[in-house]
Amino acid sequence: MRDVAVIGIGQTPIGEHWDTGIRHLAFHALKAATEDAGIEKPDALFVANMMAERLSDQAHLGALIADFAGWRGIEAATVEAACASGGAAFQQAVRAVGSGMIDVAAVVGVEKMTDLTGAAVNSGLATASDADYEQVHGVTFVALNALLMQRYMHEYGVGHDAFAAFPINAHRNAVNNPNAMFQKAITLDAYRKAPMIAPPINLMDSSPICDGAAAAIVVPLEMARSLGRTPIRVLASTNAIDCLALHDRRDLLTLDAALISASKAFEQAAITRGDVDFFEVHDAFSIMAALSLESSGFAEPGCAPEMAQEGAFDLGGELPIATMGGLKARGHPVGATGVYEIVDVVTQLRGDAGANQVKDAEIGMTQNIGGTGATVVTHLFSNN
Amino acid sequence: MRDVAVIGIGQTPIGEHWDTGIRHLAFHALKAATEDAGIEKPDALFVANMMAERLSDQAHLGALIADFAGWRGIEAATVEAACASGGAAFQQAVRAVGSGMIDVAAVVGVEKMTDLTGAAVNSGLATASDADYEQVHGVTFVALNALLMQRYMHEYGVGHDAFAAFPINAHRNAVNNPNAMFQKAITLDAYRKAPMIAPPINLMDSSPICDGAAAAIVVPLEMARSLGRTPIRVLASTNAIDCLALHDRRDLLTLDAALISASKAFEQAAITRGDVDFFEVHDAFSIMAALSLESSGFAEPGCAPEMAQEGAFDLGGELPIATMGGLKARGHPVGATGVYEIVDVVTQLRGDAGANQVKDAEIGMTQNIGGTGATVVTHLFSNN
Repeated sequence: MRDVAVIGIGQTPIGEHWDTGIRHLAFHALKAATEDAGIEKPDALFVANMMAERLSDQAHLGALIADFAGWRGIEAATVEAACASGGAAFQQAVRAVGSGMIDVAAVVGVEKMTDLTGAAVNSGLATASDADYEQVHGVTFVALNALLMQRYMHEYGVGHDAFAAFPINAHRNAVNNPNAMFQKAITLDAYRKAPMIAPPINLMDSSPICDGAAAAIVVPLEMARSLGRTPIRVLASTNAIDCLALHDRRDLLTLDAALISASKAFEQAAITRGDVDFFEVHDAFSIMAALSLESSGFAEPGCAPEMAQEGAFDLGGELPIATMGGLKARGHPVGATGVYEIVDVVTQLRGDAGANQVKDAEIGMTQNIGGTGATVVTHLFSNN
Repeated sequence: MRDVAVIGIGQTPIGEHWDTGIRHLAFHALKAATEDAGIEKPDALFVANMMAERLSDQAHLGALIADFAGWRGIEAATVEAACASGGAAFQQAVRAVGSGMIDVAAVVGVEKMTDLTGAAVNSGLATASDADYEQVHGVTFVALNALLMQRYMHEYGVGHDAFAAFPINAHRNAVNNPNAMFQKAITLDAYRKAPMIAPPINLMDSSPICDGAAAAIVVPLEMARSLGRTPIRVLASTNAIDCLALHDRRDLLTLDAALISASKAFEQAAITRGDVDFFEVHDAFSIMAALSLESSGFAEPGCAPEMAQEGAFDLGGELPIATMGGLKARGHPVGATGVYEIVDVVTQLRGDAGANQVKDAEIGMTQNIGGTGATVVTHLFSNN
């Protein structure tokens, strides 16, 4: 496979976009990305989306968005892997360009979740879990994560307060991100007082329902250089699956898919965990951040919350995470999230992260998790 | 890109599978395909599906099906492009293997449409069209195709009877396909007497609502040869888009996406139209078969129905189409259809089509159409 690189990124602010349709949201992100890349038109468009068919009565987003962008005749398709759709779509773009069949690929992740009631959105989110063995019992997606968090606290003797450092760090980083949904820091006291959603997950343990779109332009590394753009090289692109239903997991507190996906990524990139300068973690819930860090080998089992409390994952720590606010505070428009993570990594590796810049960042990692860990997509990027 | 080939195929009979869940349906097709290929486990699974999220409350089919097949740890994702999902998913598998990142890729197309009421299925199918500009007027997916057929009949002065040859040919071919939904021939009289669905589309102009799954195993050509399997080589894989909404088309009676997709495929394969020995056409409606043939250059505008009447597209004709029954009679489980087309082509190119064998077939073509022509995926295959 030939080497590929990202040469353009774009995003919309994350929030409630009641006056913007799904095609328009996607278009805004794509327009910014193509302008950033200095290209007119890609050869292919990969759309990442999970719920438009249910929430907007709209499937077939590939053609819809490509046409709206003025790109008739190019190729397009949608890629879905629940909340890991963004990472999975980006992976297809990497292969399309890497294979030599496509020169310029655009990826756009888009999700519009705020036009309907909470019940409709919760039913939609539940489709990421097992319809026959989980949904049938009425368990929501938050509740599944709550079961994991409860088990974690029980198994490792960790208290609820220990998780506070994850949302506190995410919110602190979001303050400087104009595209973040919550540009506001929170305190430990606010964390403690947050209303309970599904015990032990409270409002501050949980990412928000929101709308947003993020885009990236992928080209061969050689082309990036000849265009005079700063290429952010894709070092690794891996995807691994586990069972959807929690009761079937080998070990409830190990995300095997994260373990495999991360290990393969380090192998593909020929680097070690220690070479990663920062990590855009999938902190859809505080517990998911902890499990992702531990299963990817950045923390011993049961130790991620303590490391977070000690500042290991802060901007100045040994492995900054959620550097632009993460899913918790930047926001989590589910199908778009994997692409937002990539946009954040590229921003950092270009040195464009302003007050949130990770110093001397050379290698960044993203991990995009579908369901409660059934699909895990890992990417590694480098600026040299 | 390295050359790739199909070395295994599998399918379930198409029909009403009320006692079989979506994961089970997909598994049956995958099991047959892996056994046919002589492999235990693929490295990646690409699922083609359009409506499970609405009709079965189940997204995240990649991980669900891969896990159910016993393949934890492999990579998986779902690809969607409305009724062209099958072709689009197969294309990602071709690139994944072609890029060198994946050695053995499995593709499974699966759709389960018969568990719900017709209204729910029609609403689901409508998501292939433009929600803001078409669905909002209450126009169903059949009605959109009916508008095209009406325009065709008006523009070219073609009567309704002229289209009969398409379903008559499809049903005749389905008689010998044990996996076809309708293994029964029909007469011109039956065509004329068929109940009207959306004028001028009658029951015989329209493919059925049904369940089914089809699978294919893709590997590098070299590996296929070393495994001692008969490789069916992928000569070309192209995808092109047009606008979803009919009112925005350059010309209502030309499927620009088919024109582009087919032209690029011939170029990629370095062959001419005349080299194609048979064509698995997307005859979701009689009018779609005509438009696909004409836009791909196999018939002059307005002439496909007449050619069909003259037998040009019969098994013994100059370009056999729908050789195993097509969408009309074999069946059209939407997200699975593109993979069924590929299964049919491989069957023919292996010389396994029995009574329906196209003589001396060396090059076969599939065209998988999403919506009313907004996404068109074309593949060319060869047995040498």
